[in-house]
Amino acid sequence: MHRTRSSALMMAAAMDHEIDVPGRVEFSTDARADLARTTVICGLRAGQKLRIVKYLAYGWSATRSRPALRDQADAAIHSARYSGWQGLLDSQRAYLDEFWDSADVEVEGDPESQQAVRFGLFHLLQASARAERRAIAAKGLTGTGYDGHAFWDTEGYVLPVLTYTAPHTVADALRWRASTLRLAKERAAELGLDGAAFPWRTIHGHECSAYWPAGTAAWHINADIAMAFERYRIVTGDHALEEQCGLAVLVETARLWLSLGHHDRHGVWHLDGVTGPDEYTAIVRDNVFTNLMAAQNLRSAADACNRHPETAKAMGVTTEETAAWRDAADAVNIPYDAGLGVHQQCEGFTTLAEWDFGANTAYPLLLHEAYVRLYPAQVIKQADLVLAMQWQSHAFTPEQKARNVDYYERRMVRDSSLSACTQAVMCAEVGHLQLAHDYAYEAALIDLRDLHHNTRDGLHMASLAGAWTALVVGFGGLRDDERILSLDPRLPDGISRLRFRLRWRDFRLTVDVNHADVTYTLRDGPGSELTIRHAGEDLTLKSDSPTTIAVRTRTPLLPPPQQPPGREPTHRRAMSRNQ
Amino acid sequence: MHRTRSSALMMAAAMDHEIDVPGRVEFSTDARADLARTTVICGLRAGQKLRIVKYLAYGWSATRSRPALRDQADAAIHSARYSGWQGLLDSQRAYLDEFWDSADVEVEGDPESQQAVRFGLFHLLQASARAERRAIAAKGLTGTGYDGHAFWDTEGYVLPVLTYTAPHTVADALRWRASTLRLAKERAAELGLDGAAFPWRTIHGHECSAYWPAGTAAWHINADIAMAFERYRIVTGDHALEEQCGLAVLVETARLWLSLGHHDRHGVWHLDGVTGPDEYTAIVRDNVFTNLMAAQNLRSAADACNRHPETAKAMGVTTEETAAWRDAADAVNIPYDAGLGVHQQCEGFTTLAEWDFGANTAYPLLLHEAYVRLYPAQVIKQADLVLAMQWQSHAFTPEQKARNVDYYERRMVRDSSLSACTQAVMCAEVGHLQLAHDYAYEAALIDLRDLHHNTRDGLHMASLAGAWTALVVGFGGLRDDERILSLDPRLPDGISRLRFRLRWRDFRLTVDVNHADVTYTLRDGPGSELTIRHAGEDLTLKSDSPTTIAVRTRTPLLPPPQQPPGREPTHRRAMSRNQ
Repeated sequence: MHRTRSSALMMAAAMDHEIDVPGRVEFSTDARADLARTTVICGLRAGQKLRIVKYLAYGWSATRSRPALRDQADAAIHSARYSGWQGLLDSQRAYLDEFWDSADVEVEGDPESQQAVRFGLFHLLQASARAERRAIAAKGLTGTGYDGHAFWDTEGYVLPVLTYTAPHTVADALRWRASTLRLAKERAAELGLDGAAFPWRTIHGHECSAYWPAGTAAWHINADIAMAFERYRIVTGDHALEEQCGLAVLVETARLWLSLGHHDRHGVWHLDGVTGPDEYTAIVRDNVFTNLMAAQNLRSAADACNRHPETAKAMGVTTEETAAWRDAADAVNIPYDAGLGVHQQCEGFTTLAEWDFGANTAYPLLLHEAYVRLYPAQVIKQADLVLAMQWQSHAFTPEQKARNVDYYERRMVRDSSLSACTQAVMCAEVGHLQLAHDYAYEAALIDLRDLHHNTRDGLHMASLAGAWTALVVGFGGLRDDERILSLDPRLPDGISRLRFRLRWRDFRLTVDVNHADVTYTLRDGPGSELTIRHAGEDLTLKSDSPTTIAVRTRTPLLPPPQQPPGREPTHRRAMSRNQ
Repeated sequence: MHRTRSSALMMAAAMDHEIDVPGRVEFSTDARADLARTTVICGLRAGQKLRIVKYLAYGWSATRSRPALRDQADAAIHSARYSGWQGLLDSQRAYLDEFWDSADVEVEGDPESQQAVRFGLFHLLQASARAERRAIAAKGLTGTGYDGHAFWDTEGYVLPVLTYTAPHTVADALRWRASTLRLAKERAAELGLDGAAFPWRTIHGHECSAYWPAGTAAWHINADIAMAFERYRIVTGDHALEEQCGLAVLVETARLWLSLGHHDRHGVWHLDGVTGPDEYTAIVRDNVFTNLMAAQNLRSAADACNRHPETAKAMGVTTEETAAWRDAADAVNIPYDAGLGVHQQCEGFTTLAEWDFGANTAYPLLLHEAYVRLYPAQVIKQADLVLAMQWQSHAFTPEQKARNVDYYERRMVRDSSLSACTQAVMCAEVGHLQLAHDYAYEAALIDLRDLHHNTRDGLHMASLAGAWTALVVGFGGLRDDERILSLDPRLPDGISRLRFRLRWRDFRLTVDVNHADVTYTLRDGPGSELTIRHAGEDLTLKSDSPTTIAVRTRTPLLPPPQQPPGREPTHRRAMSRNQ
């Protein structure tokens, strides 16, 4: 005799059961307003099976009435009963097959990274596919970490992956962000600024960060959002979203930047008192990452206004205003230390005191050292100048990239999960492929191996997105900051073959890389050819046959750099042995 | 028939009464442990007087037993009865006569300033005379503002006045500070620094400030303390205090500075991530005030070690260490904008954005504007670079002083009560005598006129000290940063005569200034002559006769500067009319 019992408590839910057993079955449901309890009693003989299919529908809303929600959940149950278990399973499988067909990454020679990148992609889809104008939180739907808040990670780390793999989710996420524009404008006005200041940390669009030097002062989130709109437009070719809501975001963020920055008396445009991605160096002048991103934001807004002159005019944009945006962008200060041949993360950075990495340094530093000591030292929490070189690749020469990676690797402690994937990308670009592979591994395995000892609080969505980024942007060499699809693949020794899919405009491409060459296949699309950039040279792909071409050898200018003691990346093989 | 009744509740107190009435008197005391209630009943005929003399003694201690305290209070009562009312009155009068004889400032032509400077001196004495190794709080003994905490105001604003007028109180205050050295060393160690880090805000010696950018980062408090020890030694000639406790403070603060600063690769010594006096510009590189004060701290410590080689050796000081202090002091960066011909309050200050002082600007800015906007702008809460020119006068040429005053006056909103007196001093020095007089008035009358609308929270000790400072340092031209008594008097039109007393070593001087000349009188002292500096030239005073010499005309290099709109100083005469 088995007794099966189930219960659930929910805001608005509906359940239904199909019970498939021989003999007598008692089936009773006690459905009060908020509680549905079903009791199933039946007698089974030896060898008999009880099969219960339980359909569960769930609805939540902050605005609709409870009866409306309950109707919605009931309708979902009825639809499910109509489809049946197999029907639901088939449609879910078709949905995921479609996703994987556009998104899958195949990694030969590194089964752990293979598992991890798929694990990451699945969770990105899960967090975004049904977000429906809600923020994609730092932990997605997986845990209570960061109290459900969303940060710059969404536009900066998660959306770039989805733009190439599931672009409809990106349009939804960007519409959510645009829906908070009114609040962002109110916030800017409250601070005495023009335009819109999007919140550093939010659920609904209000600024929820308390410690402003690592919150509001990280103005770059505004440019990160603008970039996400621009990337979506470039990669998908969908200009409608820009007209509907993107233009207003671009214009209002450009206005913010213009009121935040100023020209000094020599005509140089500065952004003072800002915090870049590195939260161990805050409230600085001319953070290179922020300045390059702001300049792009200003130029993108000006270009967008030219594409939609009537809409722009309705927002009060004049040619004087767009000219002022371009002028500021052209005059932006990018601090560079000519003596060392490296960029300065911010004005004066390379002349700050070096951090004393003693044998007893305890990480993360933020739990063991005072900000009053961290801020004025050359110690970096996470990729900042290095991230600028990924996102604004065209602004740096190959030699600058090599020297900058070398300089900043030695001072970066990776106390943020947003760092390893970027270090992977830039180490790969400058030819430190083994080091890049280690960073890629660390980004990808963060939750499967609980490397930060906090996976119980939820998965690190940005780092999981970084698994894809490390492989596709790092070893695939994907860049789009010059508005053309650029690839420049090169594999590390530990990966024998890398095969990934991309969407670009309405084309679907497959990129299949080994140590000698890469094969680009144009699977389908709106035309018979597509010009991309391969290893810096234009290459036209044809839809009638794949194109195979040799990969470029990457000879590093400098030997692989040392990290701060104890902060070497988790070595892939060493880690595997320990598990 | 009169009925007189009194009661009091106190930790440990004693009362006694002398009742001097004709006829029958009932006198009963109900003294429980913590409550002494006395009832006096007597019958009076018309024309008769009741005279009650009540002796009250009070004792408080955080460490001694209650019986011991009670014994102390009882003994005080017995002593008072023995002296009698007239005896107590005479001794108090003698004490104050002695104080005023060394401290009084006479201001002819400006009766309000006359009243205010005496009001201020009285409260300084009241706050310090019996402090007995307790901190002199920002509000003295007058109110609950700042929760009884002491700040840099004590060493920076209050002690300089007392050093010249009641030096025994200064020795006591400095001994209190030195008694917290162990806690300051623990604080430095906690922050990973060498030496001692004195607290920004404290009662007992622990750091009580929460918002570190305007607390711990204001490292200059350490140099302010060191300077107070050094001034006490120079002005009083008492070297014993230095040997007893000053040397340890100088050495440990020098060690702090050396670990806070660093040489860049060009050999320039920087202090990064510091906050100077101006709390609207925080976490900066090379605040001039802080750098000059730190350099003086380092040099003073090195010199003091040479004066007390054995004591220094016992503290582990070597000639290598003192050489490193001097080297850092010599290499300190003092940012200067050669194009504008002004010093930069901190690196880059003169190229920050200008604050937009609109017609609707609401003061104090800290209650109406976000720090994220204030920090990166050229808006100054209180004298900072201008204070550096007062305390480190020798580091600036007369032309630099004139240009700096002009530049910073236009950007200073005086949202702190620590500012007006300093602006008075420096405006006087560069020849803006009327403006200086207005600032002097504002500093002096802050509480008598409740200019900041918060006198109910207690008196502004530093600003009351500033009444003396504005007159004596401002119009008297007193400086001591070159270890010699320097005077350079010049009166504004609104003051016809200024007469003040000073102690220097064991001399007592009177300085008597009018618009034409000054008379220096050496009243008594250890020798028959004293060389001072008058208007930049050495002048030897003789004890047998006063010296009268013409005052130097001050021709301003530049016209009087404008303040930010709405922040002009309270005009003395306009204010008087409104009262």
